[in-house]
Amino acid sequence: MTHLRSAEIQDEIDGDTLHEECGVFGILGHPDAAALTALGLHALQHRGQEAAGIVTFDGKQFYTEKRMGLVGDHYTDPATLAKLPGTISIGHTRYSTTGEVALRNVQPLFAELEVGGIAIAHNGNFTNGLTLRRQIIATGAICQSTSDTEVVLHLIARSRHTSTADRFIDAIRQMEGGYSMLAMTRTKLIAARDPTGIRPLVMGELDGKPIFCSETCALDIIGAKYIRDVENGEVIICEIQPDGSISIDARKPVNPQPERLCLFEYVYFARPDSVVGGRNVYVARKNMGINLAKESPVEADVVVPVPDGGTPAAIGFAQASGIPFELGIIRNHYVGRTFIEPTQSIRAFGVKLKHSANRAMIEGKRVVLIDDSIVRGTTSLKIVQMIREAGAREVHIRVASPMIYHPDFYGIDTPDADKLLANQHADLASMCRFIGADSLEFLSIDGLYRAVGGEKRNPARPQFTDHYFTGDYPTRLLDKNGDNTSPKLSMLASKG
Amino acid sequence: MTHLRSAEIQDEIDGDTLHEECGVFGILGHPDAAALTALGLHALQHRGQEAAGIVTFDGKQFYTEKRMGLVGDHYTDPATLAKLPGTISIGHTRYSTTGEVALRNVQPLFAELEVGGIAIAHNGNFTNGLTLRRQIIATGAICQSTSDTEVVLHLIARSRHTSTADRFIDAIRQMEGGYSMLAMTRTKLIAARDPTGIRPLVMGELDGKPIFCSETCALDIIGAKYIRDVENGEVIICEIQPDGSISIDARKPVNPQPERLCLFEYVYFARPDSVVGGRNVYVARKNMGINLAKESPVEADVVVPVPDGGTPAAIGFAQASGIPFELGIIRNHYVGRTFIEPTQSIRAFGVKLKHSANRAMIEGKRVVLIDDSIVRGTTSLKIVQMIREAGAREVHIRVASPMIYHPDFYGIDTPDADKLLANQHADLASMCRFIGADSLEFLSIDGLYRAVGGEKRNPARPQFTDHYFTGDYPTRLLDKNGDNTSPKLSMLASKG
Amino acid sequence: MTHLRSAEIQDEIDGDTLHEECGVFGILGHPDAAALTALGLHALQHRGQEAAGIVTFDGKQFYTEKRMGLVGDHYTDPATLAKLPGTISIGHTRYSTTGEVALRNVQPLFAELEVGGIAIAHNGNFTNGLTLRRQIIATGAICQSTSDTEVVLHLIARSRHTSTADRFIDAIRQMEGGYSMLAMTRTKLIAARDPTGIRPLVMGELDGKPIFCSETCALDIIGAKYIRDVENGEVIICEIQPDGSISIDARKPVNPQPERLCLFEYVYFARPDSVVGGRNVYVARKNMGINLAKESPVEADVVVPVPDGGTPAAIGFAQASGIPFELGIIRNHYVGRTFIEPTQSIRAFGVKLKHSANRAMIEGKRVVLIDDSIVRGTTSLKIVQMIREAGAREVHIRVASPMIYHPDFYGIDTPDADKLLANQHADLASMCRFIGADSLEFLSIDGLYRAVGGEKRNPARPQFTDHYFTGDYPTRLLDKNGDNTSPKLSMLASKG
Amino acid sequence: MTHLRSAEIQDEIDGDTLHEECGVFGILGHPDAAALTALGLHALQHRGQEAAGIVTFDGKQFYTEKRMGLVGDHYTDPATLAKLPGTISIGHTRYSTTGEVALRNVQPLFAELEVGGIAIAHNGNFTNGLTLRRQIIATGAICQSTSDTEVVLHLIARSRHTSTADRFIDAIRQMEGGYSMLAMTRTKLIAARDPTGIRPLVMGELDGKPIFCSETCALDIIGAKYIRDVENGEVIICEIQPDGSISIDARKPVNPQPERLCLFEYVYFARPDSVVGGRNVYVARKNMGINLAKESPVEADVVVPVPDGGTPAAIGFAQASGIPFELGIIRNHYVGRTFIEPTQSIRAFGVKLKHSANRAMIEGKRVVLIDDSIVRGTTSLKIVQMIREAGAREVHIRVASPMIYHPDFYGIDTPDADKLLANQHADLASMCRFIGADSLEFLSIDGLYRAVGGEKRNPARPQFTDHYFTGDYPTRLLDKNGDNTSPKLSMLASKG
Repeated sequence: MTHLRSAEIQDEIDGDTLHEECGVFGILGHPDAAALTALGLHALQHRGQEAAGIVTFDGKQFYTEKRMGLVGDHYTDPATLAKLPGTISIGHTRYSTTGEVALRNVQPLFAELEVGGIAIAHNGNFTNGLTLRRQIIATGAICQSTSDTEVVLHLIARSRHTSTADRFIDAIRQMEGGYSMLAMTRTKLIAARDPTGIRPLVMGELDGKPIFCSETCALDIIGAKYIRDVENGEVIICEIQPDGSISIDARKPVNPQPERLCLFEYVYFARPDSVVGGRNVYVARKNMGINLAKESPVEADVVVPVPDGGTPAAIGFAQASGIPFELGIIRNHYVGRTFIEPTQSIRAFGVKLKHSANRAMIEGKRVVLIDDSIVRGTTSLKIVQMIREAGAREVHIRVASPMIYHPDFYGIDTPDADKLLANQHADLASMCRFIGADSLEFLSIDGLYRAVGGEKRNPARPQFTDHYFTGDYPTRLLDKNGDNTSPKLSMLASKG
Repeated sequence: MTHLRSAEIQDEIDGDTLHEECGVFGILGHPDAAALTALGLHALQHRGQEAAGIVTFDGKQFYTEKRMGLVGDHYTDPATLAKLPGTISIGHTRYSTTGEVALRNVQPLFAELEVGGIAIAHNGNFTNGLTLRRQIIATGAICQSTSDTEVVLHLIARSRHTSTADRFIDAIRQMEGGYSMLAMTRTKLIAARDPTGIRPLVMGELDGKPIFCSETCALDIIGAKYIRDVENGEVIICEIQPDGSISIDARKPVNPQPERLCLFEYVYFARPDSVVGGRNVYVARKNMGINLAKESPVEADVVVPVPDGGTPAAIGFAQASGIPFELGIIRNHYVGRTFIEPTQSIRAFGVKLKHSANRAMIEGKRVVLIDDSIVRGTTSLKIVQMIREAGAREVHIRVASPMIYHPDFYGIDTPDADKLLANQHADLASMCRFIGADSLEFLSIDGLYRAVGGEKRNPARPQFTDHYFTGDYPTRLLDKNGDNTSPKLSMLASKG
Repeated sequence: MTHLRSAEIQDEIDGDTLHEECGVFGILGHPDAAALTALGLHALQHRGQEAAGIVTFDGKQFYTEKRMGLVGDHYTDPATLAKLPGTISIGHTRYSTTGEVALRNVQPLFAELEVGGIAIAHNGNFTNGLTLRRQIIATGAICQSTSDTEVVLHLIARSRHTSTADRFIDAIRQMEGGYSMLAMTRTKLIAARDPTGIRPLVMGELDGKPIFCSETCALDIIGAKYIRDVENGEVIICEIQPDGSISIDARKPVNPQPERLCLFEYVYFARPDSVVGGRNVYVARKNMGINLAKESPVEADVVVPVPDGGTPAAIGFAQASGIPFELGIIRNHYVGRTFIEPTQSIRAFGVKLKHSANRAMIEGKRVVLIDDSIVRGTTSLKIVQMIREAGAREVHIRVASPMIYHPDFYGIDTPDADKLLANQHADLASMCRFIGADSLEFLSIDGLYRAVGGEKRNPARPQFTDHYFTGDYPTRLLDKNGDNTSPKLSMLASKG
Repeated sequence: MTHLRSAEIQDEIDGDTLHEECGVFGILGHPDAAALTALGLHALQHRGQEAAGIVTFDGKQFYTEKRMGLVGDHYTDPATLAKLPGTISIGHTRYSTTGEVALRNVQPLFAELEVGGIAIAHNGNFTNGLTLRRQIIATGAICQSTSDTEVVLHLIARSRHTSTADRFIDAIRQMEGGYSMLAMTRTKLIAARDPTGIRPLVMGELDGKPIFCSETCALDIIGAKYIRDVENGEVIICEIQPDGSISIDARKPVNPQPERLCLFEYVYFARPDSVVGGRNVYVARKNMGINLAKESPVEADVVVPVPDGGTPAAIGFAQASGIPFELGIIRNHYVGRTFIEPTQSIRAFGVKLKHSANRAMIEGKRVVLIDDSIVRGTTSLKIVQMIREAGAREVHIRVASPMIYHPDFYGIDTPDADKLLANQHADLASMCRFIGADSLEFLSIDGLYRAVGGEKRNPARPQFTDHYFTGDYPTRLLDKNGDNTSPKLSMLASKG
């Protein structure tokens, strides 16, 4: 099992895809808490397909279930839900690798505190997680997972404050990076978003009960109402009162920075029907395609999306250019859990496991391929080759985002910088030759800003997080740049 | 496990979807026979996602592997392929239910004959399978599966002919219905298509070695060349000769009827990039949308496909009508294996497990929904409701195929006739009210014929199989209409 | 999974153990039919630990469950039993290897006949199974398992008789060898024992309902009453009558030979508390030890059984010799399913996985080891070595059965003749040296006959089956000695 | 799965058996460390059959594997061992229930300390574990398991000492109760035994490398030499030196109490071939039988052990009384993992799943049944009934240990005191009537002391731990008797 790799994971190994690490969902005071959490996580499945966990509290006891695989593989049958009783629930879905250790790292994590149990789950990454881990181990803490979430638990446990909420805020104040975090105790559901607002988190409501989740699509699936985005640097504490009512207490314990939502949520991660930062993602992507058509027009016969990511931009490109939109590439959605390229002798099939050319729309035609982004370019290369083999006269690539030069440290898994296409070639012409296209153009950073927010980038105070394109990191990077001379930790491996 | 149902299966129970039963793939004389078969089956996965089997022969022994689940879940890691050595291989993918019995029914089936082993696999259904089964049981045969394929094996085993090919033809002559069948022996790969050519089967070639498969997309994935369609009523016998060359012997042992390919392959089953009967499926579907726009135009702001089936027709409809094509419904591709609607109290979510409305493209708009077909209408009803909740001003449904009135007996799993939408309502207006749309129109039978074949239906000699729309069955229906007074068979149930 | 081997299987590979292939159990007309069958099979678990199957009929339908593993691993929870409703049931437990093919071969086997379904299960082996298989395949039958049981099904299916009972007898008449067989139809439970009575089969009764099983211990566990042994060559047909009563019809369709029960049932296979052929097995084994002490006395300090097989004989030996009986070897009963000797470098541990020396009873002592039988002698060699390392002054081996020279063809899995200890050495002294004992003696054939039946062997008409010791096979051996010039069958392998 | 219960677990639920919680094994500096640990744990399997774990260190990294089930089910195939490289290893086997939580609690536990990783495993129980847990949680520690072992880890992590050994000793000093503990770091293997020496721990040697394990049988299986018992209150620190040699440093950091080994190790837990506290367990048990025959003689025809526990005492009883020893009860060793009594209507079978009467040795006889101990008496009751049904004229029970009145707090899982047979009846006569025997006698406490240690109990300073018989607990019981007014901890349940 451990040797098998899904096509998705293979892509990851090839370094030609990006991964968001998580989606979170929480609800307070609802009799169907676990079932609603399962549905919410299902709607957030695109943010992580490899494992999911749910914690509930039923007034007496906390319950948890953690499983490798899709939410829909495990969490929705009555037998599993019956193991998650209670009216408070938080859940987490992530991408990860297989095995026992992974399961140990699956969130939410739980800890027994003096004041009672607490469970937390987060999306994103801490830029000082390792630094803090070393500090608390030095003072006698035991870390059993390799997850930064555990560090947060330790900070909560060690806080001198009495109330859980204050302890949570105490911990949050020490963490740096980009994250959206949910916590639950015996009576509370707490939501927090990082000071810069890099990762998204929204607040909704169902039957008068508060909900927090990564994207609005998780509200839509259960018919919940969108209330507002959790603000950057905000902590919202919802608590069931003795009379059954729910109090909501919103605080800004840290001095917030100007909000800078991650542009990659718009480019790639968020579901097209979600509203992120008040903007419909599908509309933003269509705008990217429209702006791309304006910036880099091309004479062609068909606009073909690289499915599914490139489809909205392709629709925008087609509408702006007047060139017909056609499904020139068909995606195979049945890739399976362990699909690997069968044998060395037939490895070349590669991309065809997921994509196939629709020859009737390609043959003899000048094709504009629209993709959402290019990471290493190896997939693009194979797709161009496939399109040419299907008889295209010309193949032009238009990418609905700028070139990627820099790694992320806020929860997006990026390949090493020197593996990025943009860093491997001196200029666009060289990239174009590598990929084998007749022309290659990327959306400009201002084109992207305008597609998402209506205005071009403000260099003095950029409206969004965009370091992968620009190198402008929205926070300091302590683990990366700090003192790393302390001895390396032992590692416990379980290959289960 | 047995109580859980995937969303797909749930749909089936609701009776609001159609299922093709199978895809087949075979190759003769290639060193990577099993790996190529696995890839071919992967490309045919849309024809059956629940189980797959492969048989190979390595010059000494036959090998078989059968598994529940996707091809990509099992068949492509080196360990599994290592259990399938040899240069001759046939494979089969099917939709089915879980459990041990199902595994017993998974094709290919194998039998030890006096002249050596034979394995067979088929797509489609025999209209006299039960009649023949009774006859052979009456003369002392033992049936261990409930699959009609086993009946074919018995007919082969009982044939008085000496050569396997003649025995196969002897069996084929006795079978009625719509089918594409592959057989393999120690030296031969045999392909057969029913006399009316209801189910598709194509011949291809890779490195000079013959391949047969249900659709051309299975050739494309391995870079094989399409040679020609197997003709209706044709049996093609490929054999490895002592000198290593391959002989190909095409026969027409039965008096063929005029070919009548199943229209539902174009409407729903075949992959859009496949070429069926010489016609690109995507083009045919776009034409259906174009003809639909001409036949039943509507004033609207957006054309929205019910994904993924309705997308090509929606593109055609949008191009023909000038109304913009938009992704107003987002499909969740991570449905999972056991997704069920969690609890009675929240059952209403239903369709949202797979589809969600993209509010930004719907709100305040007049929406034309394009679907490929309507079976019972229960899904359409939920989708219309979801679109209305997203704020649509008007919802018009345009269906890219005619109304379905009659069950199929050639391998498509249809609900009981009285459950079909068209049979539950006196007229279109009543259907429209049931579904809750502002207007509802179906493509005419002639509109469909023209979309697929360029000409309208010839009532004297219809060019395609279309009984589900017209009641005109292309063959007699012996099991259904014949003498059914013989005692009912015992049934062996294994709920494993 | 396929590479792992249990210690038992390892022994088998080493060729140093014998295996009985099966135990059978059937009951007619009892509301707890499946549960009682599961309990009966549990009591017969020593006759086959690797797989078990049960078939029931509930008045409408047959049900079957087949599982690899112990009866107690699967068959006794309410969920599994709920899948086996009905008042007629037969079950089978066997030793076998793992994997899908094995499951396909697990009995009972079922067939749909013109007159209704029939399920059969048997213990033992047919000496003309392959010959008959070839004959029926030559006339068009399809064999899907490699089990001889399937051949019986075919003979039943092909019989010209009308009634199932007559068809069953027709089939039985054609089978040769040593077997006990159960069959069930919609109303009948049929039991048959081979003409020579090689394999055991007893009839019992619970709540007035007939039961058949391999040994009386399966009656004891459910509190059923022993009625009598099924006689050699007898077929007993029990049928539920329309008024609910049960008719019992005993026939002798074949001219029976004198009964010759397999001596190895007494020496090794049967459970010590069973009564086989009217004789308590524990008493017979104690007698073997008593006779052994008389035939081959030895001066020693302790009598130590090789557990568990040698224990009853050791008790007898100790009582007859006056030497104290002590547990000088402790058996580890937790061997596990996949225990293999860990690495090449520490392979020598071998026997210690199952046995360890109890030094306090060994050190400085003259030890008489009592074992039930010696097959290849490799285990004996390791045990002697272990006993010597524990400090024994002398190690004498006394074996409670004669030397084994000849293979079995009636359901006991024996190693190739040239691997048997007795065939690898010219004389007893050489065997003794090989094993490393100070002395080695086997019970005489007459000593064994007297221990079991009270009288010495009648060479003119031996009272028991004893060919492994004497070469005197009780039946002809058609498959082994007959015409084997017909072409070898293809083999279908599934390595699952 | 969660509803199924093995017969063993069922016994436990019935409260009619005792369970030791663990066996431990560790080795330092051997190239086959993991394989030897697996073999050692296999030999200790009788101390816990439900789960096992192994940790190794290979000079760079720690590795761990934890599995539910028998050691022989998982740990001995090359694939698993390959995941446990290195020359330092400790392992643990335990009895426990199924599920994910259990796996989380399976030892050894590991923690990352500032000075490097440490893994620990222990047998026994801490009488102040909960008290300490509350204290450390109050000061900010996070507990993720419910195992007391984790508390030890925390104490080590929080110690102000620099060296791991000193930290370990610091932790040990704070723990109270009865335990044997192993710890391993990157260079050290540390063994510790509680100050009273309640639980056993021995030191051995293989190829010059130190080994620690619960019983000598774990040395025997790998051919290791017994060196000595770890003394009560002793900590032995073995360390690989830079030159590859191994230093051994034995300390007595706590003021040791007089040693009092747990008598139940002799009565029930230890394997008969083990040497515990310098005394062979089989000999001790035979002596119990001999003393029992002297204290409570009875006129009878056969001495029958309740297998397997009662067998050594029965041999002793038979030798001392001159009454023949016979296997009047046969044990079924194939009980299976999930065996439950099938249905309510046939629940009465009960004990027969594991035991059956050997009628030939019982019928018409006066039977003395020898059992090792009686807990609740429910099993004894069923066995007496079974023996009577098999035709015994008289049934006398002789128990080779005294009556049990008091619960254990040192690692033996005992039922509530009021469920114990001895506490439910006013006198022996009442117990005898309850069980249905003709007579019932227990070994006296002095008889037991003499059987084990040669001398009668010294009331002023008892030589052994015997509170279950006498109420004389060897340590204070802080958790039980201390201040329990602090708030109850939340509990995290995972029903996996």
